[in-house]
Amino acid sequence: MKNEKEFVKDITNIDENFAQWYTDIVLKAELADYTSVKGFVAIRPYGYEIWENIQNYADKKFKEHGVKNVSMPVLIPESLLNKEKEHVEGFAPEVAWVTVGGGEELEERLCVRPTSETIFSTMYSKWLSSWRDLPFLYNQWCSVLRWEKETRPFLRSREFLWQEGHTIHETEEEAKQFTLNMLDVYADVIENLLAIPVLKGRKTKKEQFAGAEATYTVETLMHDGRALQGGTSHYFGQNFTKPFEVKFQNRNGEQEYAYQTSWGISTRLIGAVIMAHGDNRGLKLPPNVAPIQVIIVPIAQQKEGVLEETNKLKEKLSKKFRTKIDDRDNYSVGYKFNDWEMKGVPVRIEMGPRDIEKGEAVLVRRDNAEKITVKIDNIEEEIRNVLNDIQKSMYDTCKKRMEEKTTIALNLEELKKNLDENQGFVKTMWCGSTECEDKVKEETGAPSRCIPFEQEHLSDTCVCCGKPATKMIVWGRQY
Amino acid sequence: MKNEKEFVKDITNIDENFAQWYTDIVLKAELADYTSVKGFVAIRPYGYEIWENIQNYADKKFKEHGVKNVSMPVLIPESLLNKEKEHVEGFAPEVAWVTVGGGEELEERLCVRPTSETIFSTMYSKWLSSWRDLPFLYNQWCSVLRWEKETRPFLRSREFLWQEGHTIHETEEEAKQFTLNMLDVYADVIENLLAIPVLKGRKTKKEQFAGAEATYTVETLMHDGRALQGGTSHYFGQNFTKPFEVKFQNRNGEQEYAYQTSWGISTRLIGAVIMAHGDNRGLKLPPNVAPIQVIIVPIAQQKEGVLEETNKLKEKLSKKFRTKIDDRDNYSVGYKFNDWEMKGVPVRIEMGPRDIEKGEAVLVRRDNAEKITVKIDNIEEEIRNVLNDIQKSMYDTCKKRMEEKTTIALNLEELKKNLDENQGFVKTMWCGSTECEDKVKEETGAPSRCIPFEQEHLSDTCVCCGKPATKMIVWGRQY
Repeated sequence: MKNEKEFVKDITNIDENFAQWYTDIVLKAELADYTSVKGFVAIRPYGYEIWENIQNYADKKFKEHGVKNVSMPVLIPESLLNKEKEHVEGFAPEVAWVTVGGGEELEERLCVRPTSETIFSTMYSKWLSSWRDLPFLYNQWCSVLRWEKETRPFLRSREFLWQEGHTIHETEEEAKQFTLNMLDVYADVIENLLAIPVLKGRKTKKEQFAGAEATYTVETLMHDGRALQGGTSHYFGQNFTKPFEVKFQNRNGEQEYAYQTSWGISTRLIGAVIMAHGDNRGLKLPPNVAPIQVIIVPIAQQKEGVLEETNKLKEKLSKKFRTKIDDRDNYSVGYKFNDWEMKGVPVRIEMGPRDIEKGEAVLVRRDNAEKITVKIDNIEEEIRNVLNDIQKSMYDTCKKRMEEKTTIALNLEELKKNLDENQGFVKTMWCGSTECEDKVKEETGAPSRCIPFEQEHLSDTCVCCGKPATKMIVWGRQY
Repeated sequence: MKNEKEFVKDITNIDENFAQWYTDIVLKAELADYTSVKGFVAIRPYGYEIWENIQNYADKKFKEHGVKNVSMPVLIPESLLNKEKEHVEGFAPEVAWVTVGGGEELEERLCVRPTSETIFSTMYSKWLSSWRDLPFLYNQWCSVLRWEKETRPFLRSREFLWQEGHTIHETEEEAKQFTLNMLDVYADVIENLLAIPVLKGRKTKKEQFAGAEATYTVETLMHDGRALQGGTSHYFGQNFTKPFEVKFQNRNGEQEYAYQTSWGISTRLIGAVIMAHGDNRGLKLPPNVAPIQVIIVPIAQQKEGVLEETNKLKEKLSKKFRTKIDDRDNYSVGYKFNDWEMKGVPVRIEMGPRDIEKGEAVLVRRDNAEKITVKIDNIEEEIRNVLNDIQKSMYDTCKKRMEEKTTIALNLEELKKNLDENQGFVKTMWCGSTECEDKVKEETGAPSRCIPFEQEHLSDTCVCCGKPATKMIVWGRQY
């Protein structure tokens, strides 16, 4: 048996070394593990269930918008990847190439998809003929490969799981609107399922997706004040439909190129959940996405009737909550408490002989360690209320942090000072030039996060060059 | 508008050229399409929804057996693939190799997974320490690559979607039992969801999975009498756990290698549905797996009230059935009837002004073209009954065909004659030698399907060599 006093010491202090804390949580909460290929992880059941919960929630929302799932090939011929100039420049350096198949050198090498705009566009060109066929609203859940140099589980890995939606539309307006609708779905997933508030906006030209006309983003803030991009939705205009000949006969009988979007969220969101909510006790999962919402720990389980009653309770609660009982006989209750706290289970129920006698149980919250005694008769209602309260309270805590860590800077010195002291989002005015954007990033280490939809007038001049400002922008160092 | 009389002519006659009929259905029912890479298909929404229904059904059953989903890397280092001798001999010739990543030649080439025994075994070796950890019951839904020479959508493609379950157990008995439990799940999926009866049995040594101790199979029979392997479940014993060092401290405190299984079903099952049930009108989908169970076709939809009433009906039926309304205004009802028959929708509802007046609708079955007039008031119950009846009737039809096409042969001539006249399953006695198995396959073109669990005594001697027989075996030409 593990020494209980040592338990929490296994996890690095969150404020001393956040990066090491993160790795400790990923491994010790058994979310994922390293494999023998650098940058490729195995997602373990506990981590994968979080992903399944994200999938189920998002997939339902997509389908409410008329989106259908499909499956496209994992391999893309080099000639296809090369068709859109900015796209290939953006992705070619970081792809993996298949050069041999079935024992023979291939005539044309095939890349393992880093994203599938090229293959969707090719198929759309084959399937589209009239405006009556539109829109095509397709999505796939799959894995993609990007040969990153620095890798970290969930946050940046050479393979990651995601969904990529690809749609084509009859008009520019409809396509632009759909891009924003999908951004709203992402905000919904991240705020309501993952309890993390988002900042919505548009990426700058420099930061947008390779080949896009416009990239929209939902940005989040982690425990240490660094930013993490939660999901992006891209409007392509006709950038792909022209080279890929995705055209249709419009209502006037003329040939027209379709208007396109794509949008994605990935297993990065698991990294966001870890880093937005975790603490020195370990992972802290929002109830809506937690694989286990209620863990029952029997007290003095060797005593008569305890396992019987706790198992009865488990059956009852399983009908309404994702419930598990920990009746391992080779661990103490103290060890179990630590273990499930570390795994971030929102509610723990303790029940021993005396509780059973009184028809009660003890309910302990993971988020604030609060203990309450509840009657078994109305325990379901109590748990429902507590889970709702935890979900809300976790969101509010993150929201408060985001507000505290969102500052304003009027010049480069202030911007740098704010970031050094506080990290977070720093709002400034901006002239709109990539030169200033480059300079800010170089001097502060913070790329632009986005041009927020909700604009404010902070001053008349650009934070960098002092020339007239055209918009407010937000900066932040990132994951 | 398409010439309606020509409609069915677009599909090749099923009894004249079954292979071409199959391709016609795949393309014209918009289940899948060819892509620019040979052997790789795009699965379109209508085909993918069939797969989603299979996934949901099977995944629920797996989880009832305690199985958890995970995600393992798509790339496997060559050295790992090489660890189990029979396995590498079986798979190495048909893998695709990644040799370049991030612009650089890789030190060790990586194959795109053809199956993941090697990678699961590697991780299990890392995660397993005590008998208390066991069993590990993990599964993943993913795509795999096998560089086949001849390819056909769903049936044999270089990439296919599947699930691969990989488990390890404390004892041989438990692992063997789990192998059979998963075979039962496959039989359940294929019989109850896809309405195709199965023959259960064990594969011969020659036909078993590369590296397995025993392979169990559920075999099905298609429209033309050819066999299709529906799913397989493998018992590995310690064949992988020894070279991969997957060991644990057993209850006696000794180190022991775990006992392993793996099992898979794939998008081949979509091919099975097409070929088991289809006819000259097109696809015919069992209600339980059909993406659209009820198609509503408004009659004289330009008349007042028709679209309003049919849409009301659609809202009502959508609560209980997967329902769609076809209110396209640029196609005739005749075209629509053909179109949805071709797409295999089990029930069509026709409703026009006179039906509305009488509070009625016409219900047409896809399986036998039967038309009945039903009252709108109890239409849900009528549809429920008809869908159940179609599901059962489609199963019964397949079952009858399988029985008719299952014959007995006492010698090689009979075996060949039965296959030439009838295809189907041919039962014979067998001495158990691979020499006889090779000879039968060479002379008849039929590999062994399986050694059925339900054994019969047909004679005393082997169908091939005439020496004493040890078991009954079943042969059949295959897809």
